[in-house]
Amino acid sequence: MSSTISTLSEEDRLRLLRELSDRLGADHVITDAGEIKAASLDSRRRRQGEALALLRPGTPEEVAEILRFASRSHLVVIPQGGNTSTVGGATPNPESPLNARTLILQLSRMNRILGIDAVNGTMTVEAGAVLERVQAAAREAGKLFPVSFAAQGTAQIGGMLAANAGGVHVVRYGMARRNCLGIEVVLADGRILNLMRSVRKDNAGYDLKDLFIGSEGTLGVITKAVLDLSALPAGRITVFASLGELRAVEKLFTTLEDFAGPSLTAFELISKPALEPVIAAGRKAPIEPSDWMVLFDLSYTKREDPEAFAESLTDALSPLFEDGTLADAAIAQTETQAEALWTLREEIPTAVRASGGNIKNDISVPRGSLCAFIEETYVRFETEAPWLLPMIFGHYGDGNLHFNLGSKPDFGPGYWKAHEREIHRLVNDEVVKFGGSVAAEHGVGAKIQVLERTKDPLELELMKKLRGVFDPEGILNPGRVVRYPEDVWQNPKEAWD
Amino acid sequence: MSSTISTLSEEDRLRLLRELSDRLGADHVITDAGEIKAASLDSRRRRQGEALALLRPGTPEEVAEILRFASRSHLVVIPQGGNTSTVGGATPNPESPLNARTLILQLSRMNRILGIDAVNGTMTVEAGAVLERVQAAAREAGKLFPVSFAAQGTAQIGGMLAANAGGVHVVRYGMARRNCLGIEVVLADGRILNLMRSVRKDNAGYDLKDLFIGSEGTLGVITKAVLDLSALPAGRITVFASLGELRAVEKLFTTLEDFAGPSLTAFELISKPALEPVIAAGRKAPIEPSDWMVLFDLSYTKREDPEAFAESLTDALSPLFEDGTLADAAIAQTETQAEALWTLREEIPTAVRASGGNIKNDISVPRGSLCAFIEETYVRFETEAPWLLPMIFGHYGDGNLHFNLGSKPDFGPGYWKAHEREIHRLVNDEVVKFGGSVAAEHGVGAKIQVLERTKDPLELELMKKLRGVFDPEGILNPGRVVRYPEDVWQNPKEAWD
Repeated sequence: MSSTISTLSEEDRLRLLRELSDRLGADHVITDAGEIKAASLDSRRRRQGEALALLRPGTPEEVAEILRFASRSHLVVIPQGGNTSTVGGATPNPESPLNARTLILQLSRMNRILGIDAVNGTMTVEAGAVLERVQAAAREAGKLFPVSFAAQGTAQIGGMLAANAGGVHVVRYGMARRNCLGIEVVLADGRILNLMRSVRKDNAGYDLKDLFIGSEGTLGVITKAVLDLSALPAGRITVFASLGELRAVEKLFTTLEDFAGPSLTAFELISKPALEPVIAAGRKAPIEPSDWMVLFDLSYTKREDPEAFAESLTDALSPLFEDGTLADAAIAQTETQAEALWTLREEIPTAVRASGGNIKNDISVPRGSLCAFIEETYVRFETEAPWLLPMIFGHYGDGNLHFNLGSKPDFGPGYWKAHEREIHRLVNDEVVKFGGSVAAEHGVGAKIQVLERTKDPLELELMKKLRGVFDPEGILNPGRVVRYPEDVWQNPKEAWD
Repeated sequence: MSSTISTLSEEDRLRLLRELSDRLGADHVITDAGEIKAASLDSRRRRQGEALALLRPGTPEEVAEILRFASRSHLVVIPQGGNTSTVGGATPNPESPLNARTLILQLSRMNRILGIDAVNGTMTVEAGAVLERVQAAAREAGKLFPVSFAAQGTAQIGGMLAANAGGVHVVRYGMARRNCLGIEVVLADGRILNLMRSVRKDNAGYDLKDLFIGSEGTLGVITKAVLDLSALPAGRITVFASLGELRAVEKLFTTLEDFAGPSLTAFELISKPALEPVIAAGRKAPIEPSDWMVLFDLSYTKREDPEAFAESLTDALSPLFEDGTLADAAIAQTETQAEALWTLREEIPTAVRASGGNIKNDISVPRGSLCAFIEETYVRFETEAPWLLPMIFGHYGDGNLHFNLGSKPDFGPGYWKAHEREIHRLVNDEVVKFGGSVAAEHGVGAKIQVLERTKDPLELELMKKLRGVFDPEGILNPGRVVRYPEDVWQNPKEAWD
């Protein structure tokens, strides 16, 4: 699909829409300008795209029919789940000449939970099922679906898998990939690939499933999945603590891992400037905030006595108060108290947005180098961008921080807006230097140039070849993840890097 | 690489060996007939292949040089770790006309442990490091590398990853794939692909790593890896129990999962005929064997009181004695006792071999269907192969059984030998019917025909296309995993299906 063939006459437009309606039913081909506009805006409301129509198929066969039709008619297709991608992975490229020929394929009608096998510990779902409903269904069956992140009330399973979403429980349960045993995928040529395995050991051939997971709709459209359920913990102990200094996080984390092993189910690091907007908005911190704080969960199973657990935790932490690792800590033993502590963490993005926003970097660095990375980056900020206010928080346990950077009050809350690209570059260069990832849990989406600037050309070459195997014409989510075809139109104004 | 160009004159042979010696040093090009013969025999000693030479490179660059040379000289390359593949994945195809042009690439010299990052919980190793040494190094650093299987004293990390090995701890820690964060791979064209990530969140592009893991050396040669270490448990409680009946295993497993969550680190099912040869060889069972037995581990962390743990386990199991789920149980609370119980399980393969051997099927079926699969298969055995003695054991927790089938004493211990292919087919057909895998943890290796008979042709087509991307000339491990090129020579006598 080349940008040279992307014009479309009004006559062609009407004919294509009629042919799509013949296939899906007119109700499922949405041409209402308002609805198209809403679905063409990314979740961070930064890039307004356009599209020919929204399609809402009801079956994998209809998805297949759409892809065959798109291929024949020189249309491109953007698969869209809950449209919660923060990197433009599910919305059209603004101003792209391809937009007149873009179909947004929404999976929302294919949202059934098809079954739970309690003995196998698996749930079979359609791709449009909303994550929160899947979590609830698992709990009702006495099991846990552990993938959990802010957008879970809107995000769909298909999108979660396409983006290989992360979240707060990765330290214990891994990314979306690890919690999925099988998928059904419609290929660009309309063939349906059945990889709906529900076994935990399967070495019968290459691992195709994990190639589609994390490919953000560029290699195929995920239409069904077999999810791996975990044992449901009986409860959790949640701790909000202030650290003596940044480096203390290492000792605290290794102590907890050693002490509690798989009970450590979340471990978040929060810097003071990230928490301050939450406090300013009226929330009360349970302890005096220090420069660096942590929030962590220790889960326990049915067999355990929560009080004995809490007691042993207090014993394990007490030397850390003595040696200055910890300054203060609040321990929540009821779920209500735990939720109150988590609210402080969960409200950071909203409070920060209200207070002027910031430059967002979704990066990871090996845990063992994370403190050095923060220190070195902060030094560069002081000399190269003294206006900058780091508002760091995120998943220390996974080495994944939301390395978000606002501007100091003196410079005005929106000062950062003129410096986004240069700051992204500075941060990404440091990430690469420390062996980290410039797209840790949110995906690549429109950040193609970031990958082109930071990745080994050999890896990019192989990615393009793989895209060529699965979608030779480039009809799936063009201009996302990796440039394919080579001449795919890129919005020069897209400052995602 | 086509079989038509596989003849080799003595003059050519000597020239090629000389050129290889020039590149690697004569000491690392082994042409001794005895050594070649040993390295060309698969670990089950069933298929004696041949090769031109064994090569022992010392660096990834030398591996790259070998692959470039092989490509130019129309040679093929079989990467070999500890040569413990049970499916012919690391040895030449007997009688293949390619053998005169086959180089066996041994990674044994590249066996260093390059470093441990205790805070990150990772270990960087060369591919030739032996698994047991890696486990020991992790323990010395206070961590656990959880992949564990019978051949661990010989198996190398590269082979473990190439085969995506399983073992006894998959129920808790997953396959080899899950315990590896990054790899270095030498591609067929001699380029070195650096995927040596050591972060747990990385969505910067397609998941190339997991394509190489499990590809059994057909897509590239793994030369280094970053391994993910887990928290080291403080100890374990091991239970050997007899079940009231086969179906009781489901209730026991779900009870334990619910009770202990991630503490359940191993769960094996053992049928009486699998244990009998071990008893006959002089081992004592701690309880009266029943038709179906289980052996499981519950691990505990530092924070826990082992005695309180054991007590709560006794409480949790006691209703299962009352309702007939369990007939009897022996609980080991010391490591010595635990090891004695595990010896019973570990000696099954050796004892069975000594008592006449059997037909081996490495299969998995979703746990929720595993009992029905066993029951239905046993019914078919009674009518279709009344001579057959099922000697089943394996990893129930993963739905993965060593569905091994000997012959009843009346028919003589080796009676099964004449019926291998037909019994493989019967079992594999049932596995497919129950949604399982015909190559669960040992890999595909030479079982190409099994995949061709049981897999969706679309999946096979995609596998071939992927092989074409990474190794267009087909110089890597030809005739293994998937037929590529199409005309690759297959030994018609290879009854691996």
